[in-house]
Amino acid sequence: MQPPAHVIGEFLNQAIRLAVRNVSDGGGPFGAVVVTADGRTHDGVNRVTLDNDPTAHAEVVAIRKAAAASGSFDLSGAVLYASCEPCPLCLAAALWARVDRVYFAADRYSAAAAGFDDALFHEYFDGDRPELMPVSHTDLPASDLPFHAWRDNPDRTEY
Amino acid sequence: MQPPAHVIGEFLNQAIRLAVRNVSDGGGPFGAVVVTADGRTHDGVNRVTLDNDPTAHAEVVAIRKAAAASGSFDLSGAVLYASCEPCPLCLAAALWARVDRVYFAADRYSAAAAGFDDALFHEYFDGDRPELMPVSHTDLPASDLPFHAWRDNPDRTEY
Repeated sequence: MQPPAHVIGEFLNQAIRLAVRNVSDGGGPFGAVVVTADGRTHDGVNRVTLDNDPTAHAEVVAIRKAAAASGSFDLSGAVLYASCEPCPLCLAAALWARVDRVYFAADRYSAAAAGFDDALFHEYFDGDRPELMPVSHTDLPASDLPFHAWRDNPDRTEY
Repeated sequence: MQPPAHVIGEFLNQAIRLAVRNVSDGGGPFGAVVVTADGRTHDGVNRVTLDNDPTAHAEVVAIRKAAAASGSFDLSGAVLYASCEPCPLCLAAALWARVDRVYFAADRYSAAAAGFDDALFHEYFDGDRPELMPVSHTDLPASDLPFHAWRDNPDRTEY
């Protein structure tokens, strides 16, 4: 079920305000809000340079906070609002968190114009820029041992 | 420059051992090692269910540790070794961290056989499963304000 347009606008504007304030605070120009199924909001801002954490994108920070506050790695029913189009890192984080849907305000081209690689990394996932980071498969005799251990563990928590 | 084959095998086997041990420790069957340009190693295991953090994949954990230990969000010159083919979250984290190259042992189909959605989420990024998580663009009058604030901030740290 989609939220009403005015709700989408409100949360997107909240994410934008977080992003603007984060620039004054020395961070990157990105903000995000996760609204969990229980209606609570969890916000995040980009802390990559402040925390020396290349994964601390606003959406990832908001998702991690939402999951911690919910006591669950599964945020089914949640909606993610982002000041800017989520990059592949943030989309994948939202997929693993089982976020229902995503809304964003600015797009990847505005981010690119401001000097960020979001659009470039989308191209990598489109298969157009494989040279950015070569990935090689080296199968080994032990490759599947972790999965055997997993299946043999009756106490495993699946996700 | 590619590491010699025996070095690749050694670090992949180290990642596999971490993954096997992590299953006994109650975590998911994934391990990773980041070797930074200075030759130091930083390992990670999957902590999604243990930490209620849907982003705590082995590769993300190892990248965050490597960046924290290096005091930098930029891991140029680093190599990532993963017990299993990195999912889009982990590939994107490695891209943002400026990891040079990636090696993996088991593949996404072994992960799928063990019940994990890696292969499914690769399909999402291939454009084949958009229904998994709809993403909508809602441009607003304030959409680009964060980027204006960013360009106007002479003290910004770019990345």
